[in-house]
Amino acid sequence: MGIMGAQMAARLVRSGAQVTVWNRSLAKTEPLKALGALVASTPREVTTSCDLVFAMLADPQAAMKVATEGPDAAVAGIAARPPTAAPITYVDCSTVDAATGEFVGNAVRAAMVAGAADPDKGGFLAAPVSGGWRDCRDGTLLFLCGGSRAAYDAACVPHGLDAMGHKRWLLGPNPGDAARAKLMLQVMMGNMVGSLAEMMALSKASGLDERAVLDVLSNSAMGNPLCTAKGKLMMEMKYEPNFQVYLQQKDLRLALQLADDLGVPAPISAAANAQYVRARQMCLANADFAAVRMAYEAEVPPDKESETGELN
Amino acid sequence: MGIMGAQMAARLVRSGAQVTVWNRSLAKTEPLKALGALVASTPREVTTSCDLVFAMLADPQAAMKVATEGPDAAVAGIAARPPTAAPITYVDCSTVDAATGEFVGNAVRAAMVAGAADPDKGGFLAAPVSGGWRDCRDGTLLFLCGGSRAAYDAACVPHGLDAMGHKRWLLGPNPGDAARAKLMLQVMMGNMVGSLAEMMALSKASGLDERAVLDVLSNSAMGNPLCTAKGKLMMEMKYEPNFQVYLQQKDLRLALQLADDLGVPAPISAAANAQYVRARQMCLANADFAAVRMAYEAEVPPDKESETGELN
Amino acid sequence: MGIMGAQMAARLVRSGAQVTVWNRSLAKTEPLKALGALVASTPREVTTSCDLVFAMLADPQAAMKVATEGPDAAVAGIAARPPTAAPITYVDCSTVDAATGEFVGNAVRAAMVAGAADPDKGGFLAAPVSGGWRDCRDGTLLFLCGGSRAAYDAACVPHGLDAMGHKRWLLGPNPGDAARAKLMLQVMMGNMVGSLAEMMALSKASGLDERAVLDVLSNSAMGNPLCTAKGKLMMEMKYEPNFQVYLQQKDLRLALQLADDLGVPAPISAAANAQYVRARQMCLANADFAAVRMAYEAEVPPDKESETGELN
Amino acid sequence: MGIMGAQMAARLVRSGAQVTVWNRSLAKTEPLKALGALVASTPREVTTSCDLVFAMLADPQAAMKVATEGPDAAVAGIAARPPTAAPITYVDCSTVDAATGEFVGNAVRAAMVAGAADPDKGGFLAAPVSGGWRDCRDGTLLFLCGGSRAAYDAACVPHGLDAMGHKRWLLGPNPGDAARAKLMLQVMMGNMVGSLAEMMALSKASGLDERAVLDVLSNSAMGNPLCTAKGKLMMEMKYEPNFQVYLQQKDLRLALQLADDLGVPAPISAAANAQYVRARQMCLANADFAAVRMAYEAEVPPDKESETGELN
Repeated sequence: MGIMGAQMAARLVRSGAQVTVWNRSLAKTEPLKALGALVASTPREVTTSCDLVFAMLADPQAAMKVATEGPDAAVAGIAARPPTAAPITYVDCSTVDAATGEFVGNAVRAAMVAGAADPDKGGFLAAPVSGGWRDCRDGTLLFLCGGSRAAYDAACVPHGLDAMGHKRWLLGPNPGDAARAKLMLQVMMGNMVGSLAEMMALSKASGLDERAVLDVLSNSAMGNPLCTAKGKLMMEMKYEPNFQVYLQQKDLRLALQLADDLGVPAPISAAANAQYVRARQMCLANADFAAVRMAYEAEVPPDKESETGELN
Repeated sequence: MGIMGAQMAARLVRSGAQVTVWNRSLAKTEPLKALGALVASTPREVTTSCDLVFAMLADPQAAMKVATEGPDAAVAGIAARPPTAAPITYVDCSTVDAATGEFVGNAVRAAMVAGAADPDKGGFLAAPVSGGWRDCRDGTLLFLCGGSRAAYDAACVPHGLDAMGHKRWLLGPNPGDAARAKLMLQVMMGNMVGSLAEMMALSKASGLDERAVLDVLSNSAMGNPLCTAKGKLMMEMKYEPNFQVYLQQKDLRLALQLADDLGVPAPISAAANAQYVRARQMCLANADFAAVRMAYEAEVPPDKESETGELN
Repeated sequence: MGIMGAQMAARLVRSGAQVTVWNRSLAKTEPLKALGALVASTPREVTTSCDLVFAMLADPQAAMKVATEGPDAAVAGIAARPPTAAPITYVDCSTVDAATGEFVGNAVRAAMVAGAADPDKGGFLAAPVSGGWRDCRDGTLLFLCGGSRAAYDAACVPHGLDAMGHKRWLLGPNPGDAARAKLMLQVMMGNMVGSLAEMMALSKASGLDERAVLDVLSNSAMGNPLCTAKGKLMMEMKYEPNFQVYLQQKDLRLALQLADDLGVPAPISAAANAQYVRARQMCLANADFAAVRMAYEAEVPPDKESETGELN
Repeated sequence: MGIMGAQMAARLVRSGAQVTVWNRSLAKTEPLKALGALVASTPREVTTSCDLVFAMLADPQAAMKVATEGPDAAVAGIAARPPTAAPITYVDCSTVDAATGEFVGNAVRAAMVAGAADPDKGGFLAAPVSGGWRDCRDGTLLFLCGGSRAAYDAACVPHGLDAMGHKRWLLGPNPGDAARAKLMLQVMMGNMVGSLAEMMALSKASGLDERAVLDVLSNSAMGNPLCTAKGKLMMEMKYEPNFQVYLQQKDLRLALQLADDLGVPAPISAAANAQYVRARQMCLANADFAAVRMAYEAEVPPDKESETGELN
C-alpha cells in the first residue's frame, strides 16, 4: 500500500471488485478498509483466498521476499490452494530485473504444480508499469507484461488490469520479457537523445539557430515529447537530473551485454554508449542524461563547471 | 507555375495581394490571370516591378538560371531598380543545396549594391518548403529559411509567407543555412531509424513480440509518426521505397563531411552510416531506408531476395 | 608437472638451484627426481620448506585449489612457517582471470600475516607466461607479472624467473594486473586484426592486389608477424582456428566491460567488437578470428559455407 | 634534380645506363653531367630520345605540368616519336593523388596512340616511393606501382627501378592504384595508432605500468616500430609533429569517402576518425597524430595546454 499500490487498490475497489489487501504495516490498509476492502494479515492469506492477485512492491528484493520467502509468502498460499479451487493468477506489477521476474515466476509455477493446479490456466504474469501515482488514481497506467497468454488473459479483465490502466501489452512468454522490453525502450532512448545531442552540436557549430532547428524537428514526423524536452535542456545547458547519465549508460551497457549474448551486432548503441561514458568522464555522471550533449564540446564551459560539480 | 508554384501564387492572389506571375511557358499562367494576377514576360520584369518576389523552381539549375543567367534574369531587374524604389526582397522557395543558395544570394546582393539599394533592407532569403501541393493549396506549408533578419521580416507578412504556410523559421543568417538545417534533420532521421532497426533486431532476437514493443514505443514519450511507420515496414519486411537507402546514406555522408569540416566528432552518425552502407552492400540501395533493419540479419531472407533484387 | 611445468622445473634444476617438486600424481615427478630434484607429497610441504615457490596449473580452478583448499594447500604451509624463516615468495605462473589472481594473492597474504612473516618481503606474484613448451625448455618464456615490487625482485633471480624466461615485466601492484595487461594486449590484437580486415576489404573492393598491399604493409614501419600471418589467412580465406572468433570477441567484451567500469570511452574497440559479433552471426564463431574479414562481405561465399559450417 | 631526383639519377648513371637528365634550372644538372649524363633542355627532348623515362617532381601540379603542359611537355615528345621507335615507358615517381595519376596516365596513353605506338608495350607507370634521400643514394627505396603489367615489367630492370630501390610492387592496373594503396596503409596506420591510444588509456586507468605494457606489446607478435615509437610519445606526452593529427584525419576521411563510393562499410575506421576529429577539437590539429591519445582524457592537462597551443 505504497503511493502507487494504494491508488491501484482503490481503483480495483471502485471497479466493483471484491478486494482483499495486505501491507507490511497494518495502518496503511485503513483507507482501503474504509472503502470496503478486506484486510489480510499475510501474503499467504491473500493467495489462498483470491483468484487474481496483484503485487506492487518497492524493489526486486521486496518483490522476491513477499512472493517466496517463508511460510507466510504468497507461494505458500498458492501451494496450499485446494485442487478444486479456481486457477490463480499472480500479477507482479513491481519494477524488477529479468532474473528476478524469472525467479518469482518459477516459484509461482512450482507452487501451482505442488498444489495440483491446472498449469494451463492462470499462472504468473510480470506486469511492471509506466506512469506515476496520478495514473494509478486515474486508471491510465501502461502495463508491460511478460508471461503466458493464459495469465495475461486472466489479468486483463474489467476488475483487473483494465481497471488500473488503459494500455497493456504482452511482450513475450517469459516474466523476464517485461524487463527486456523496458531495456529495448531504454536503448532507443539512449540512442535518440545521443543522436539529438550530435545534431544539436553540429547545428551549433554550423551557425544555425539551435532553437529553430529543434522547433522544426518537433514539427516534423520525427517530433516527440522526449526530444522536445531534452533539446530544451541542451540549449539551456541545464542538466538538473531527471534520469541520470550514469543510469542511461548502465542501461545501454546492459543492452550491449544482451546483444553480445544474442550474437546481434549493436554498433549504433555501442557508439552512443561511448558518448555517455565520455560524459561520465567529464564529471557529468549525475547530471540529466541530456548532458551527453557536453561530450561534443571540447571542454565543459567554465561557468558550468561548478554546477556540474554539484550535480556529480 | 508548377504544381506547387501555381497553388502558392493562387494563395497569394486570394490573400488580397496584387500579384505578378511569370512562367517559362505562358499557357500555365492563364488560370492565375483569370484569378486576377498580372503576367510578366521575364523574371526581370517581375523583379523590376515588385517589392516582394517568390521563386519556386524545380531544381538548383533552374533556380540559378532564373535568378542569374542573362539579361532577362531576376538579378538584372534588381540591378535596374531605381535608387528611390522600395527595397526588394527575393525569396527562393526551391529546394537547393547550400552552395546554390549561397551563389544566388550573392548574386542578388551584388545586384542590389549595383542598383544602390539600401543593403540593410530586404535582400535574399532562401526558404525551401516542407509539404506537398495540398499544403500549398491550404496554406499549411512549413518554410525553412536562411538569410538576413531583414529579408525574413519582409517575407513574413500576411501577403507573403504567411499566406502560404503556417510555420516558418529563420535558421541562420546565410542562404545555405536552410539546406544545412535540412541536413541536420536528415541526420536525426538516419540515426533514429537506424536505432529503431537495432532495437527491433534485438527485440526479435530476444524473443519479444516486436509489434508490441513498437506499440509501447509509439505510446511512450519517444513516440513519433516516423518510428511508427518505419517500424511497421520493418516488421512486415516490406521495403517499397518512400525514401531510399542510398539517399539516406548520401545525406549521412554529407553530414559527416560537414562534421569533419567543422571539427565536430559525429560517432553515432558514423556508426549509423556504416549500417546503411551495409544495407547497400546487401543490394538494398533502392529499398526504403527502413531496410537498414536487414543490416542486422545474418543474410537477406531467401524469399525476399527476388523482391529486393527488383528494388535494386 | 604438465608439459610446461615439467620443462620449467628442469630449467630450474639445471640452473643449479635446489628444487623441490610436487605433482598431483607422483609418477610425473620421476624425471625431475632423476635430474636431482626432491619430491614433496603436498603443496604444503613445498611452501613449508622452500623460500621461492612456482606454481604452474592448468586453469583457475586448479590454481585456486592447490593454493588454498584444505590442510595440504600451499597457504597452510605458508602459515606454518616459523617466524624466523626467510620470507617466502609464491609465484603463480598459471593463466588465470583477474579475480582468481586477487583471490589467491589475498590468501597468501593472509597466511603470511598468520605466520607473522614480514609483509614487506617476498609475498605473492602472479606471473602468467607467454610462450609454449619449447620456450619452457629453452628458457625463452615471457612473464607478465602482477604483484609487489618485493615479490617481483625476489622472483627475478638467476635461480628463479630468469632461469626460465628471458623477458619479464612488472605490470602493476596487484595480482590481477597481469590478467588485465593480457586483456590490454587482446584489445590491441582484436582491433589490429579488425582494422586489417577493413583494409583488406577496401583494398579488394578498390581492385588492388591484396597480396601486394599486405606485402607493402609487412615491409613498412607497421609490419608485424601477426598482420602478416592473419592477412595471409584472409587472402586465402582459410580460417582454420588458431584463436577463435568467439574467444577474441569475448576478450573484447571483457575489455569493454572494464572500460565501462573505469569510465573510459572505448569507441574503436566497441566498433571492432561489433564486427566480431557479426562474424559470429555469420556462423564463424569457431573459425580463426581472422575470419572477421568475412564481416565485410555481403554474404559468406557459397563455396565456403560448408567449411565454415564444419568449423562452427 | 631535387634532393631525391638527383640521387636517383646518379644511381642510374652508376648502374651503367646511358642517362639523359632534365631540370627546370640547368645548374642542378651539372653534377650529373660530370658523372656522365647527357642533359636535355626540355622534358620533350627526354621523351623523344629515351625509351625509359623517370619523373620525380615535387607535387601533383609540377608532375602534371612537366608531363602534359605546352609544346615542351613530356607527352609532346611521346607523340612525336616515330612509329618505328621502341615503345616508351614513362614512370612517374612523384607522390600524387589518384586523380592526378589517372590524368597523367591518360595523357601519356593518348600521346602514344597519337604517335602510333604499340599500346600493349611500355606505357605509363605511377611509382611513388617510400623512403628518403639516403634510400635514393643507397638504392633502398620502396616503389608502390600502379599501371599495366607491361609498363611495370619495362620499368623493373637493372638499369631502371631495380637500380634505385630494393622492393617494388604492382598494386593495380591503374595509375591511381598507387595512391589508393598508400591510402590503405594510412587507414591501417590511423586505426593502429588510434587503437594503441585506446589501449594505453585503458592501461593507465587500470593502474598498469604503461611502459611495461608497451614493452610487452613490442615483444609480442604484434610488435612493430610504429607502435613502439608512438607509444613512447604517448607516455611522455610529447607530441612534436612528425605526421600531424589533421593529416592523418584527412587521410581517414578520404578513405571513408572511398569506402562509401565502393559500398563497403568501414565502421572501425569511422570510429577512429571520430577520435582524431576530437583531437582536432582539443586544439591538437598540428600535434603529432599520436596525440589522438589525448582524446581519451577528460581534458588536456593544464601543463600541456600552452605547448599544444603553440603546436596548433
